[in-house]
Amino acid sequence: LNRRLAEFGTTIFAEMSALAVRTGAINLGQGFPDTDGPEEVREAAVRALRDGRGNQYPPGPGIPELRAAIAAHQERFYGHLGLSCDPDTEVLVTTGATEAIAASLLALLEPGDEVIALEPYYDSYAACIAMAGGRRVPVTLRPRPESGTYALDLDELRDAVTDRTRLLLLNSPHNPTGTVLTRDELAEIARLACERDLLVVTDEVYEHLVFEGAHLPLASFPGMRERTVTIGSAGKTFSFTGWKIGWVTAAPELVAAVRSAKQFLTFTSGGPFQYALAEALALPDSYYAGFLNDLRAKRDLLGDGLRAAGFEVYQPQGTYFVTTDIRPLGHTDGHAFCRALPERAGVVAIPNAVFYDHQEQGAPFVRFAFCKKTEVLQEAVDRLKGLA
Amino acid sequence: LNRRLAEFGTTIFAEMSALAVRTGAINLGQGFPDTDGPEEVREAAVRALRDGRGNQYPPGPGIPELRAAIAAHQERFYGHLGLSCDPDTEVLVTTGATEAIAASLLALLEPGDEVIALEPYYDSYAACIAMAGGRRVPVTLRPRPESGTYALDLDELRDAVTDRTRLLLLNSPHNPTGTVLTRDELAEIARLACERDLLVVTDEVYEHLVFEGAHLPLASFPGMRERTVTIGSAGKTFSFTGWKIGWVTAAPELVAAVRSAKQFLTFTSGGPFQYALAEALALPDSYYAGFLNDLRAKRDLLGDGLRAAGFEVYQPQGTYFVTTDIRPLGHTDGHAFCRALPERAGVVAIPNAVFYDHQEQGAPFVRFAFCKKTEVLQEAVDRLKGLA
Ligand SMILES: CSCCC(=O)C(=O)O
Ligand SMILES: CSCCC(=O)C(=O)O
Repeated sequence: LNRRLAEFGTTIFAEMSALAVRTGAINLGQGFPDTDGPEEVREAAVRALRDGRGNQYPPGPGIPELRAAIAAHQERFYGHLGLSCDPDTEVLVTTGATEAIAASLLALLEPGDEVIALEPYYDSYAACIAMAGGRRVPVTLRPRPESGTYALDLDELRDAVTDRTRLLLLNSPHNPTGTVLTRDELAEIARLACERDLLVVTDEVYEHLVFEGAHLPLASFPGMRERTVTIGSAGKTFSFTGWKIGWVTAAPELVAAVRSAKQFLTFTSGGPFQYALAEALALPDSYYAGFLNDLRAKRDLLGDGLRAAGFEVYQPQGTYFVTTDIRPLGHTDGHAFCRALPERAGVVAIPNAVFYDHQEQGAPFVRFAFCKKTEVLQEAVDRLKGLA
Repeated sequence: LNRRLAEFGTTIFAEMSALAVRTGAINLGQGFPDTDGPEEVREAAVRALRDGRGNQYPPGPGIPELRAAIAAHQERFYGHLGLSCDPDTEVLVTTGATEAIAASLLALLEPGDEVIALEPYYDSYAACIAMAGGRRVPVTLRPRPESGTYALDLDELRDAVTDRTRLLLLNSPHNPTGTVLTRDELAEIARLACERDLLVVTDEVYEHLVFEGAHLPLASFPGMRERTVTIGSAGKTFSFTGWKIGWVTAAPELVAAVRSAKQFLTFTSGGPFQYALAEALALPDSYYAGFLNDLRAKRDLLGDGLRAAGFEVYQPQGTYFVTTDIRPLGHTDGHAFCRALPERAGVVAIPNAVFYDHQEQGAPFVRFAFCKKTEVLQEAVDRLKGLA
């Protein structure tokens, strides 16, 4: 392993999911649903397989049907904000959001470029910045125990921009904290990006999991359309995370750049799934509303249970993760806590510290996923009650 | 797009397959079969989908069933050469060979490291070396019109190694020339790698398409096991290229390194396909023999037809590609020839020049794929007769 990647051994998700399998504990670590998405979407994949659609290399940019569906989805949900995209030149299908992030950074960064990312950050951000030879500059979301939320300090963000800053790597709804940036925050970020002429890569895979209000794509703010790469995920939105189909939408020059890197990372993938997800994106509003309402109820169930078990809970405004502070339980080291939790309580969670450059800042915080069956969440909550 | 990738716009495969779609020409360009693999493999994928196996994130290294099947496949075909691997620590499932190549190079190269690759080389090699910040050093396979084959000059290979050389990137059976390195050549390469302490990444995706004799994995040569990353492909072996499932086998430290990069490129992919391909690898010998015999007959059909049409044919000993020289037809520029061929003859082919650093060396050579239905090849041959 080369020096650049030396600090990135095994992702925490692999480590913790393996721990869950080994101990038989309830896995509230890695963010994947324990119930597959709609049967009709699965059956659409079966039809594609049997009809021989996608069994051989789909086009590198994605099949036209899926690109059209992604463009139509954008128009449907964000057209009123002035967003739209051309399926031929402004959409790229990827092997999940993971590849979208990797390809974007590998395409857009020159060695030495600085990338500002909101800390705590999803672990692949740091690894991909390193692979591209970039330098990451974290701007930390601060816990506000009074309100039970995390807050972005816009002054800190502004101060982090230097002449070497090439790119802002954003994520809202934010994993792991569940923070949803407000319209004012997004507007300010957009102003800053324009003023300092920055590219923006914005990971919006939880766009359909905003519990209050509506998701606002960063690309819809003034001046952002031409400098923003927006990342979406069918795995997250339709609960087929194992299919690993995601996408990028952006201006033609940016899509062309990301495609240049992407075509040499995987070329293409998931042929038959691309056909199924083209149909999925056209599901009626009731699907999207049902998905959101289901997850909201689960958020409340898990959040209440964690509070009852003695955790301090940071109420997520989006995503399917809830961040907790374990200090009220008498612990300060989240990593040690998570390593012991399967034995102590039969539950797996993720230590937020791994998402920080300054791990001590994240030390007492632990993330639980609530994209699980109600009875599983109930059982987890019951088990966790024994901790206090 | 950054400077490193500036020279890699759109892969020739995307360009030429798009041309085929646009013109309705017979696509003998990109290497994918026009007939899907075994129905039972496809139905195994349907069962996995419906049983909910692989619809959520499979483990990053691949599902245990597939890793076990890959290890068993290696034992079955190469055990007599002393090759075997541990499915838990020496196998990594990837998003096709493409990702295996990308992850290997991104994991193993330090900026400035030299990588020796056989020219003409598969286009992603060059792009991935560039993404990793390495420097490619081509060693050219020379056409030998007398024998109708390509030959590796071992002295040239030896001379290409410098103190900066970190890695040999090999490919046998070789795309696009169809060359299969001989036992003596492989032994000499192995000696060189040991002597100069080089890592080797060897792309052996056409291992089951060796038309005379048997495939010899480079990893089976003395001293190679611990320094070699071997790449295989289910898409190629089972004719489901659209599923994009490949793998890496190597010593534990090498697999761990490649996995570190791979986990941030895609994390995982193709869940249900992994289950299906675990079954596919265990198909009886008759499957593998049938696949080989079918392709051998097609090689002969296309080769004879191209000869009859006036091309000089380099007889492939492996792969599903045949390289031709267009000079007997009065042409010298393969790229121009391939751009015009759909209009002139209703056939798409690939100009080998794009696989060269010194494009003039490859200028008069053109590659045709013969992994197509017999009647399609026959029709292509009939159309090409009109060229002379
Ligand atoms: C690709 S593994 C991680 C899934 C996820 O988004 C998370 O758990 O944070
Ligand atoms: C991943 S696209 C290329 C398929 C192939 O191996 C070839 O045509 O050379």
